[in-house]
Amino acid sequence: MPTITVSEAHRHIGQRVTLKGWLYNRRSSGKILFLQIRDGSGVIQAVLGASDNPDLFAKADQFSRETSLVVHGVVKEDARASIGCELLLEDADVIHQPSVDFPIELKEQTPGFLMDHRHLWMRTGRQVPVLRVRDAAFYAFRQFFHERGFVATEAPILTGTSVEGTTTLFELDYFGDSAYLSQSGQLYLEATAMALGRVYWIGPAFRAEKSKTRKHVTEFWIAEAEMAFYDHAMNLDLQEDLVRYIVTHVIEERGPELKELGQDVEQLQREVAEPFARLDYGDAVTLLQELGHDVSFGDDFGAPQEASLGDHFGKPVFIERFPVEMKPFYMKRDPADPTRVMAADLIAPEGYGEIIGGSQRVDTEEELVSQLTEAGLPTEPYQWYIDLRRFGSVPHSGFGMGLARVIAWITGVSHIREVIPFPRQINRLYP
Amino acid sequence: MPTITVSEAHRHIGQRVTLKGWLYNRRSSGKILFLQIRDGSGVIQAVLGASDNPDLFAKADQFSRETSLVVHGVVKEDARASIGCELLLEDADVIHQPSVDFPIELKEQTPGFLMDHRHLWMRTGRQVPVLRVRDAAFYAFRQFFHERGFVATEAPILTGTSVEGTTTLFELDYFGDSAYLSQSGQLYLEATAMALGRVYWIGPAFRAEKSKTRKHVTEFWIAEAEMAFYDHAMNLDLQEDLVRYIVTHVIEERGPELKELGQDVEQLQREVAEPFARLDYGDAVTLLQELGHDVSFGDDFGAPQEASLGDHFGKPVFIERFPVEMKPFYMKRDPADPTRVMAADLIAPEGYGEIIGGSQRVDTEEELVSQLTEAGLPTEPYQWYIDLRRFGSVPHSGFGMGLARVIAWITGVSHIREVIPFPRQINRLYP
Repeated sequence: MPTITVSEAHRHIGQRVTLKGWLYNRRSSGKILFLQIRDGSGVIQAVLGASDNPDLFAKADQFSRETSLVVHGVVKEDARASIGCELLLEDADVIHQPSVDFPIELKEQTPGFLMDHRHLWMRTGRQVPVLRVRDAAFYAFRQFFHERGFVATEAPILTGTSVEGTTTLFELDYFGDSAYLSQSGQLYLEATAMALGRVYWIGPAFRAEKSKTRKHVTEFWIAEAEMAFYDHAMNLDLQEDLVRYIVTHVIEERGPELKELGQDVEQLQREVAEPFARLDYGDAVTLLQELGHDVSFGDDFGAPQEASLGDHFGKPVFIERFPVEMKPFYMKRDPADPTRVMAADLIAPEGYGEIIGGSQRVDTEEELVSQLTEAGLPTEPYQWYIDLRRFGSVPHSGFGMGLARVIAWITGVSHIREVIPFPRQINRLYP
Repeated sequence: MPTITVSEAHRHIGQRVTLKGWLYNRRSSGKILFLQIRDGSGVIQAVLGASDNPDLFAKADQFSRETSLVVHGVVKEDARASIGCELLLEDADVIHQPSVDFPIELKEQTPGFLMDHRHLWMRTGRQVPVLRVRDAAFYAFRQFFHERGFVATEAPILTGTSVEGTTTLFELDYFGDSAYLSQSGQLYLEATAMALGRVYWIGPAFRAEKSKTRKHVTEFWIAEAEMAFYDHAMNLDLQEDLVRYIVTHVIEERGPELKELGQDVEQLQREVAEPFARLDYGDAVTLLQELGHDVSFGDDFGAPQEASLGDHFGKPVFIERFPVEMKPFYMKRDPADPTRVMAADLIAPEGYGEIIGGSQRVDTEEELVSQLTEAGLPTEPYQWYIDLRRFGSVPHSGFGMGLARVIAWITGVSHIREVIPFPRQINRLYP
């Protein structure tokens, strides 16, 4: 008798199989018992009639939620089930039956309670399909670059230098010195790109921000790429291809999960089918004013403005060429208009906000030192970064993607803490 | 004229191409100029005769090391070259020529100097092939699990709990509370395995150890997996399959790099061809005594003992079933002999030391609480971890792999700081 997972069951129609999992839910008509069994790959319904096996019926009718089980039965086609089949139960061995009720109920509970029980909450409801979509999105991100000959690398987490000032950095004692938790691997990836050509990574980044919005956590996995010999236009084209690739591949590999989440897959496909919108920052300000927003040239866009732009275009929108004052020191200024940087943010549709920030990087020592100085930053800790402009500098570009926001967009989850296995927020370090 | 990378050149024999890269080295006979051009994917030799193009010859004869270039020429087959071809140079555009000498020389320099210039050192010598092997090893690790239906996940880096005591933890202020940098994602991956079945990740781990050996850094990427419904024997089989898969795939995908590193690929293949050795801890002590080591039952093995075991078998060796006193609280004791844990370390051959530590995990609340107490640890911060044994506990196992050591073994590099893009050591936080 083969031991299979729920996700494999549809390939075993008519066969007797063994499944290992947990009781997700149970209901009984008195005559027929329905056991929902989950194993991490999906949920299957096991069915047993009272007259088929009275002893097993009596035993299984007592299983409490999250009882761990090894069950045996025959897989039967069932077009009504989202996985296309159910299990005619023939036997069930209990591995462990909880002696108290499972605290996560199959109805609404407060976010605080759920977050306190994240380790148990993650077994229920949309949590499993969301975390499976997360896996597929991470995989697609890496596969995209792997197929294109990029080299995966890692930036250090512990650094002596800060990328964008020190106000939102976590600081720690490093054998008597100060170290900071990295906010971005970008500067290091630039160095690595000069050695390896084109590089990418997904790694943790930290922001000691006191923000409590639904788009902020203190620890998140940032996905970044840096490319030697890439200019601003090539950078945007690559980002657009990447976003389209991720959405398309997640839809392909996680169809049942998106269905379970009630997502409109066709809408997602429509959103990435056409070329993304590209808008000069100044034109974006004008458009937002026309749409009734109170914004002026030089303002950062907030969530309402980003949502408006997404709604207006119904697809991702690049906002390009920001005023230099709005952006960090490492971005290259437009030679045709030195008041602007050759940078772009990519705004997701449906109000999911900025999912990518990128730019061509400054590539001469003179510009870099001058822009560090303008930003009020010392040059000494950046000496290694300046070196990249002293020895064989090339035009180069890169970007950082907030994968959690991309996953929220794909899954339709409104708070990004639900797309992270164990999210960290200002008041949240447990479990 | 197609723009190609060095690694693609052998597919363009006879064609006129464009290449973008850096001058790695230059030599001239006065009549013929040889330019070694690197682009991160490999190194190609560009050749130019003085009589072919006197102007270009005079210009190119002045290129300094690390000059960034766009070169044009015809790819010519050359069996002597490791990449199988060279470039007949027709034109070269200088993007940036350094005004000072590149500090990394193509001869031996002190480790301290090289580490201070890690951002430049990584462009030279064996650094590029080693980092490309690293990419392939990370990819193979993930691909192994992806193909088997495991779900990729992430453990948090910031934690309020420590896994193995607090003496080697980096501590930081988290909005007024204490937080620690994770030493392992294991406990969190156990929770996730109860939701998703079988999970894995590669993520950073931190040890505030004052060790200065060639096998220790303070920050490293640990590769971990946790599996519900896996016992000790299944755990070992999976680890063995994984190590064989990684070595085999890296050899397949990075043949030119291993050749450049002078590695004996056939020896590597031999080392993983046969079933790995499996040795009871007690038998390992006896064997080491026979091999002349001064060790007693209950001792941890150090580098010399691990090297001896590797030499003796000429392949990876599992040391199994350690005395409980030697191992952490979360390991399951052998029901047949409660003085031993169902754990194993995997020792690499050639002196590369322990590359995997794993065990079946304790799976009853009673055992876990008792083992926490024996270890002198409080139960309260582990309440969520205890919960995993209260709600549908199952036999489960997992392991952590030191990928840097695996890469050192595959590449033949003796100090693991060379297989990490930007290593962190007790006295090393720059660049």
